[in-house]
Amino acid sequence: MLKILKIRFLNSPNVSLNEIKNYKLKTVLKLLDLQISIKEKGSLNINLNDFGIREGISEVIVTTISLQKIPNAAPIGIIRRNNKTFCKVFKNSHTYDNIKATKLLVANIVYDPILFVQSAFTDLDSAEFKKLPDIKIPILKNANAWILFFCEYKEKSKAMIVDLNPLNAKFITPSIRAVNRGFNAVIEATIYGTRYKVFKNKKCFDWIDYYNKIVIKCGNSKDKKAMEMLYDFLKV
Amino acid sequence: MLKILKIRFLNSPNVSLNEIKNYKLKTVLKLLDLQISIKEKGSLNINLNDFGIREGISEVIVTTISLQKIPNAAPIGIIRRNNKTFCKVFKNSHTYDNIKATKLLVANIVYDPILFVQSAFTDLDSAEFKKLPDIKIPILKNANAWILFFCEYKEKSKAMIVDLNPLNAKFITPSIRAVNRGFNAVIEATIYGTRYKVFKNKKCFDWIDYYNKIVIKCGNSKDKKAMEMLYDFLKV
Repeated sequence: MLKILKIRFLNSPNVSLNEIKNYKLKTVLKLLDLQISIKEKGSLNINLNDFGIREGISEVIVTTISLQKIPNAAPIGIIRRNNKTFCKVFKNSHTYDNIKATKLLVANIVYDPILFVQSAFTDLDSAEFKKLPDIKIPILKNANAWILFFCEYKEKSKAMIVDLNPLNAKFITPSIRAVNRGFNAVIEATIYGTRYKVFKNKKCFDWIDYYNKIVIKCGNSKDKKAMEMLYDFLKV
Repeated sequence: MLKILKIRFLNSPNVSLNEIKNYKLKTVLKLLDLQISIKEKGSLNINLNDFGIREGISEVIVTTISLQKIPNAAPIGIIRRNNKTFCKVFKNSHTYDNIKATKLLVANIVYDPILFVQSAFTDLDSAEFKKLPDIKIPILKNANAWILFFCEYKEKSKAMIVDLNPLNAKFITPSIRAVNRGFNAVIEATIYGTRYKVFKNKKCFDWIDYYNKIVIKCGNSKDKKAMEMLYDFLKV
């Protein structure tokens, strides 16, 4: 029976969560090779607020893994609206391929401006990832919290819309930081940087320069380093 | 002896912290009517990082009190640079008058966009303040952390530069929130709003509209409510 289900799952990447819900939870998790020690179904009642994902769009770094076990990290906006949690993942990205392959992603809540810039433009160093014994997808070493999601996706012409169903989560570091406009400006500049990479619109640089002024005025040394890296990534 | 010092302090608002440091700490705190139960001098070794105030500029809401015990709240940027912690407070503000009168302020670490907008343009409702038994200055009820500072100020033509010396601090709520561009945009829009109030430059409205688009896209219902209030405050 398990073997049949396993073959069925591996051969049907579009099997829906509703369909899976008909199976016993433990069976599904075993199929997914998650090896989560879930004692009862109640463990899936995860309040996303407690892990930093609230109403609106949460900017997180998503970690995924390929079938060849190669980890990937990319900044993604996770949308919570009308009791739904979802994200949009563009084609021609590792995140897209990995979600198709594994139907899993981890949303890492981080406040490191360098990680946002690096993961937007290049591969993170393997030392930035951390393998946990109980979940298949590596998290980011410096995550303050993480949430493992089961992904149900619908393909659109240029992207997939991914419905996110929490499977496991942890709030690691109870730290506090006041609003810093410099850090926030790095996030905005990174978005304009990724737009520049796609659309080659020189106006993006005006915006990046605008935000860089805020970083110089309000940011800390890490924010400033992140901006230097951003400018480097955008060099022709 | 105490009486003499007390009279001296009350009559010398410009007495410096260095001068005060020559007195015994308990004596000074008694003079300041702080009634903090400090067991030893080590209690003043407060690591501001632990309470959310880090390198760069931290956007906080500062609470102060007048000699007539009327509380006030205002958004202020607290600067940490080269091992100094200070802020700039403009003349013709309650914060300015209150710091002159009491030499004390509380930096409240908050993530409530409505509090940022309200405290920038009007008086907060008294229900937003909370009196703690051990400190003279009320904190904000919804603060996630607060730091009480002793203020040493130098007057400039339009403002005072206030050197901040931590006296007491508390990290109240160990919550976590992912980066939300909507919330961040409310902060930026509020800054343009306060600039508009001072300089009446209509261009500020273009910026506020720009940030409002980000709030509509990324923010939560509180961020959107805060923007509505901001537009209301700026109506002629």
